[in-house]
Amino acid sequence: MILQLEPKLAAPSTDALLAAVKGIGYQPTHVTTQFGSYVVCVGKKDFDIRTLGSLAGVRDVHYVSDDYQLVSRKWKVERTYIDLGDGVKLGNGYFQIMAGPCSIESEKQVESVAKHLKSCGVRVMRGGVFKPRSSPYSFRGMGIEGLKMFAAICREYGIKIITEVMEPAQIEPMYEYIDVYQVGARNSQNFNLLDELGKVDKPVMIKRGISGTIEELLFAAEYVFSGGNERLLICERGIRTYERASRNTFDINAIPILRDKTHLPVIVDPSHAIGLREFVEPVALAGVIAGADGVIVEIHESPEDAASDGAQTLNYEESARLFRKVRAVLNVQENW
Amino acid sequence: MILQLEPKLAAPSTDALLAAVKGIGYQPTHVTTQFGSYVVCVGKKDFDIRTLGSLAGVRDVHYVSDDYQLVSRKWKVERTYIDLGDGVKLGNGYFQIMAGPCSIESEKQVESVAKHLKSCGVRVMRGGVFKPRSSPYSFRGMGIEGLKMFAAICREYGIKIITEVMEPAQIEPMYEYIDVYQVGARNSQNFNLLDELGKVDKPVMIKRGISGTIEELLFAAEYVFSGGNERLLICERGIRTYERASRNTFDINAIPILRDKTHLPVIVDPSHAIGLREFVEPVALAGVIAGADGVIVEIHESPEDAASDGAQTLNYEESARLFRKVRAVLNVQENW
Amino acid sequence: MILQLEPKLAAPSTDALLAAVKGIGYQPTHVTTQFGSYVVCVGKKDFDIRTLGSLAGVRDVHYVSDDYQLVSRKWKVERTYIDLGDGVKLGNGYFQIMAGPCSIESEKQVESVAKHLKSCGVRVMRGGVFKPRSSPYSFRGMGIEGLKMFAAICREYGIKIITEVMEPAQIEPMYEYIDVYQVGARNSQNFNLLDELGKVDKPVMIKRGISGTIEELLFAAEYVFSGGNERLLICERGIRTYERASRNTFDINAIPILRDKTHLPVIVDPSHAIGLREFVEPVALAGVIAGADGVIVEIHESPEDAASDGAQTLNYEESARLFRKVRAVLNVQENW
Amino acid sequence: MILQLEPKLAAPSTDALLAAVKGIGYQPTHVTTQFGSYVVCVGKKDFDIRTLGSLAGVRDVHYVSDDYQLVSRKWKVERTYIDLGDGVKLGNGYFQIMAGPCSIESEKQVESVAKHLKSCGVRVMRGGVFKPRSSPYSFRGMGIEGLKMFAAICREYGIKIITEVMEPAQIEPMYEYIDVYQVGARNSQNFNLLDELGKVDKPVMIKRGISGTIEELLFAAEYVFSGGNERLLICERGIRTYERASRNTFDINAIPILRDKTHLPVIVDPSHAIGLREFVEPVALAGVIAGADGVIVEIHESPEDAASDGAQTLNYEESARLFRKVRAVLNVQENW
Repeated sequence: MILQLEPKLAAPSTDALLAAVKGIGYQPTHVTTQFGSYVVCVGKKDFDIRTLGSLAGVRDVHYVSDDYQLVSRKWKVERTYIDLGDGVKLGNGYFQIMAGPCSIESEKQVESVAKHLKSCGVRVMRGGVFKPRSSPYSFRGMGIEGLKMFAAICREYGIKIITEVMEPAQIEPMYEYIDVYQVGARNSQNFNLLDELGKVDKPVMIKRGISGTIEELLFAAEYVFSGGNERLLICERGIRTYERASRNTFDINAIPILRDKTHLPVIVDPSHAIGLREFVEPVALAGVIAGADGVIVEIHESPEDAASDGAQTLNYEESARLFRKVRAVLNVQENW
Repeated sequence: MILQLEPKLAAPSTDALLAAVKGIGYQPTHVTTQFGSYVVCVGKKDFDIRTLGSLAGVRDVHYVSDDYQLVSRKWKVERTYIDLGDGVKLGNGYFQIMAGPCSIESEKQVESVAKHLKSCGVRVMRGGVFKPRSSPYSFRGMGIEGLKMFAAICREYGIKIITEVMEPAQIEPMYEYIDVYQVGARNSQNFNLLDELGKVDKPVMIKRGISGTIEELLFAAEYVFSGGNERLLICERGIRTYERASRNTFDINAIPILRDKTHLPVIVDPSHAIGLREFVEPVALAGVIAGADGVIVEIHESPEDAASDGAQTLNYEESARLFRKVRAVLNVQENW
Repeated sequence: MILQLEPKLAAPSTDALLAAVKGIGYQPTHVTTQFGSYVVCVGKKDFDIRTLGSLAGVRDVHYVSDDYQLVSRKWKVERTYIDLGDGVKLGNGYFQIMAGPCSIESEKQVESVAKHLKSCGVRVMRGGVFKPRSSPYSFRGMGIEGLKMFAAICREYGIKIITEVMEPAQIEPMYEYIDVYQVGARNSQNFNLLDELGKVDKPVMIKRGISGTIEELLFAAEYVFSGGNERLLICERGIRTYERASRNTFDINAIPILRDKTHLPVIVDPSHAIGLREFVEPVALAGVIAGADGVIVEIHESPEDAASDGAQTLNYEESARLFRKVRAVLNVQENW
Repeated sequence: MILQLEPKLAAPSTDALLAAVKGIGYQPTHVTTQFGSYVVCVGKKDFDIRTLGSLAGVRDVHYVSDDYQLVSRKWKVERTYIDLGDGVKLGNGYFQIMAGPCSIESEKQVESVAKHLKSCGVRVMRGGVFKPRSSPYSFRGMGIEGLKMFAAICREYGIKIITEVMEPAQIEPMYEYIDVYQVGARNSQNFNLLDELGKVDKPVMIKRGISGTIEELLFAAEYVFSGGNERLLICERGIRTYERASRNTFDINAIPILRDKTHLPVIVDPSHAIGLREFVEPVALAGVIAGADGVIVEIHESPEDAASDGAQTLNYEESARLFRKVRAVLNVQENW
C-alpha cells in the first residue's frame, strides 16, 4: 500500500501518520523523492481504507498487490519519463537511441563517435570508464580522468552521457560528469550500491542481472526509488540460458511484461542480448516493435580494433542503417 | 561434404561413387528426396576435391563445415520455399500466417474459425487432433475422425491444414487429410518419428524442443531431409528457462541465427513462446521483424471456453488486429 | 483420488462404480495392472467420502493432492520394489548396480563385460542396441540381432538386461530378450511410447528428460502405470543448465525429492549426469548417499575404443573400485 | 604464467623482472600476498622459459594453461588450507562444519546456538548481520552492533565467526570481530568488493553466483588472491535452473570439478542448495562424500520463529544428527 502525502508535510504530521499505520499492523517506510513524499506500507493486514484516507496529510491511498510497490504500474497510471535536459526526454512516448563504445579509449575515439552520433541525430552516448571484467588482469577502463575527457567532448556536441558506476565511492566523483548512472548486470543485486543511488538526484538505469528475474529487476528499481530517486530506467540485456549459439538469450517477452508491470521506461540492449554483431540489427528492431522506450547499442569506428571485445559492436555504417530502421519502426507504430 | 548427383543416376554408377568416397575415408549416406539425389559424407579426412568432382555422376561438390549438412545454408544459396498448392507458398519471400485453435473440438468450432480466417485472408489453419499432454488424464484430442471433419471443412474454404503427428503409426492415416505434418516440441528428438517423416512426400514443420538447442533443431531437420523429404519448416516456440513471468522464453535471437545457418523457412509461434494472451501480439511482431517466414498463432472464438487451456489464445478481434499489424510490418520490411 | 477395487470385480459392478463417480462430478479412469484394479478420479469436486467408500467393490479410498495419482507416495505407504527374478530385486531396500557399455558392439565385448560384472557381483547389465543420436549419420546401434546376442550371453552369466526402447513397434520384438525396458531422456515425453509400455508386463525405467522437471518425470511414470504397468523405475541422469564445465548438471536434489513424492524406486545415472569419466565416482557415491535405490554406470574394457563416445565411461578397474565404494556407503547407511 | 619470486626481493630487482617480462610480450601483474610474492603474466606469447628462469629473483616459473592463474591447481600441487587459529583448520584434509542462523537476532539466540555448537564439537558459527534482501522493505540485519555482540559471545565459547560483508566500507569495521569474511552469491561479481578483500589479512569465503559458472567463481577468487590475499575458500550453494521443486539446483558436479581445478578448499552449503529443510541432510552428505572440505548449514533453535525465512533451517536435533552422519562419512572416506 502506498500513501501519497501532501507536499511539505510537517514532521509532526508525518510522525502521526506513521504511528497510525503501524497501529493497524503495517510496517511503514517513509520515502521522500525529488517529486513527492510517500509512506510505503508492507505486511498484510485488512483495514478500513477510510481510516487512513481521512488522516491529515494523506493525499491519496493506493492499494498495490505486487510485492514491489513504488515502481508498480498499479498505482501510477501515467508512464514515467526522464528529462535529461536540452529536449532529451525518455519514456512515455519519448524514444531515445543511446550508442557508443564499450570502453572509452581516447579523445580521438570519443570525438569520432560524438561526431557520428550528432550526424545521425542521436542525443545520448554510452561508454565505460569503469569496466566490470571477469578477469582481474583485463583492462578495467580509463577511470575518472577518462570520464572528464568524455564529458568535455560530449558537452561540446550537445550529447548526454550514460556510463556505469560500480561502487558507492564512485557516485560522488562521477556526479558532475554524467547524465545517467548505469548499474551493470553484475551489480543488479548490489543492494548497497542501489541504496546509495537512491540518494542522488540524477537518473539511474538498472540492467537486469545475468540471470535475474523480471521481479528481481523491479525490486532493484524499488531499492533506488524507495531510497529517494524516482528518475529510473530499466534495461533488458539478455539472460543466461543453456543455448550456446548466442552470448545471451534476449528475453523479448520481458518488454511487454515489464511495460505492464511498471510505469518506468524500458530500454533494450541488443548488443549484449545476442552478442553477435551481424544480428544486432534484427533483435534491436524486435525490441523496439515489442514496445521498448529506448535502445542502447555498442558502436565503434572500427570494431576490430576496440579495446574491449568488439564481437557485438557495430561500425558507423551498420549503426546508421540501424538507426534509420528503428525510426521507420517507430513511425509504423505511431500510425497503428 | 555433399555430393549432388546427376538426376536418375543408374544404381551401378551410384555404387561406384559410394565406393570411391569410402575409399578416401569418408562415411557416405545416399539420400534421395523429392527433388534430388545426394551423397552426404561425414568423417574428417583431407582429400583432393578433383578426385571426386571428376567422378561420373557428380554434378556438384559442396564442402559444408557444419555438423549438419543438407539443411545447412553453406551449400544452398537460395532459400527454400514450400508450396502447399493453390498459391499458398511459404519461405524465400513468401510469408504465411497460420492460425487456429489448440484443439479441434467440433464442426461448429472449425467452421467458425475457417470463416474468420477466410475473412482475414489467412490461408492455413492449425488445430490439434492428437494432443500431447503432460497428464494421461487430460483430453487427448478428437483423433483421426476429428481430422477428417477438420479437413472436409477446410477444403470447402480453400484453407490448408497443419496438425501434429505423434507417432509413426499415425503418418499414413493422416496423409490424405493434412497439408503439413507438425512435429511437436516434445517429439523434436523422437528420431524414429523423424526417420519415418523422411519417407513421406508432404511438408513437415519441426518445432524446437522444450529446451532444445538451435543445433539440435537443425539436426532434427537433417533427419527428415536425409530420410528423403526436403519439404521442411522449422519453428521457434520459446525455450525453458528459469524465468517464471512467462510460460517460456521466446528466443528471438534464434530467428536471425537460424536464417543464417539454414536455407529452410523459419516460423515463429508467439502463442507458446510467451503463453500470455495479452502479450502475444508484441512478441509475434518482434518475430516477424526479426526475419521470420511465417507465424503460427492460437485463436479461438471464445478463448475462455476452449477445450484446452486458453491462456495464450487470441479471440477473433485480437487476431484480426494482429494480422493487420503483421502485414504492416511486412510492408515496412519490403521498403527498407 | 484413487479407488482401490476388490480384485476380480465383475464388469457390472465396475460400471456402476464409474457411474457413481461421474455422478459426483469426477472424471474417472479405470486402470487394471498386474497387481491391482483402480479407478483414478480427477477434477476437483467436494464430496462425502462415505458415499464412495460404501459402494460395492471399493476396498479403499485414497485422497491424493498431487496432480499425478498412482505414482504418488500419498496413497501407497510401502515403497515399491521390482523383482527381476533369480533374486534380483530393486527398490524398498534392495539396491542394484547396473553397468555396461553405451552400445553393444560385439560378442567379444559383451562376453568381456559380463565376465567382469559377474566377478564384481553385479547382476544387471546395460547396453544399447537402438541408439538415439543427435546426428542421423552416427552409429545407431546393432538393432534386434545385437539384442539377441546380448541376451544369449547374459543368460549364460545369470545377468539381467536393461536396454533402451525407442518406438512402440520395437516393444514386441524386444520383449523376449530384455528384463527392463529403458525409456531414454529424449523420449521421456513420447506419450505414445509410454502408453504402449503401459500394456506390457515387463519393468520399465524412465529417464528424466534432458530438461524435464521432476513433475514431468512423475507424469511420465503415471502414463505407464495408468496404462496398466506398475513395474516402474525412474532415473535421474542430469539436466541441461547454463554450466559448461560438465556435460549435464546432476540434480542431486531430485533424489530425496523423488523419494518423498513417489513410492517408485529411484535410480541415478552418474555417467550422463556429469559426462566426465574422472568424476563419475564421486557423483555416483553422492547419489547413493542421497538415497538412490540403484545406480546405472557406463563401463567398457577400453573406453578409448568404445563405439560411442567414451568420455564418461569407466574401465574395469575404475568400475570395480566404484562398486566397492558404493557398497561401503550402503553399509554406512544401514548402520545409521 | 606465474613467476614465484624470492621472498623479500628488493624493489629494483622486481622492476627489472617486470621489464623483462614485458619485453617478451607478456602483461605482468605483481602480486604480494601474506605468504609470497608473484608475477602473474597474461597474454599469449611463445618464449624460452630459460630466459625467465635464470633472471635474478625468480624462484620458480609455472606455466598455467587456465585463464585464471593463482587459484589454479596447475601450479600448486599441495592443497591450500586455512588456519583460523586455536586448532581450527580448513582444507587439505582438515574438515570443518560451520553452522548457525540465517540472521543474528539477539544475545539469547546467539548464546543458545553457541552452546549447541559447542556440545556438538562444531568450531565455526555462521550468522548474518548485513543481509542482502530482494526487497528493500525486508529486515536487513542487526548491523555492526549485532556483530560485536555475536563476536563477544562466540569468543567466550571458543567459536570462530563467518559472516557476510556487502560493501568495501564494511570491511574495516568488521575486521576486529570476524574470522572469515563471506562474499554472498549476489556479490560474487562485485569486483570492487573483491579487490578490497584482496588487501585484508583475514580469510574470505566466496560463494558461487546465483547463476555463476565454475569459471566465474574461480575468477572471483583470482581477484582476491591477485589483490594480495591467499586465504580463500570457495563455496557451492546451488544454481538457478528451470526446476521449481527445489529453491536452487545443487550442482554436485562442481565439487569434484572445483577440486580438480583449484587448490583452494571447497565448501558446500546444502541449506541454500536445496532450500527445503527436510532434505538438507541427504544433500549435505552428498556434498561431503563428493569431496567437500567443509559444510555450512543453517540452524536455529526453532526454525519456525526465525527472523528470516526458515524454510531451509534445521533445528538442533536435526543438525546434531546431520553432524554425526557427516563424521561417519568422513570416517568411511578415510578408510577407502
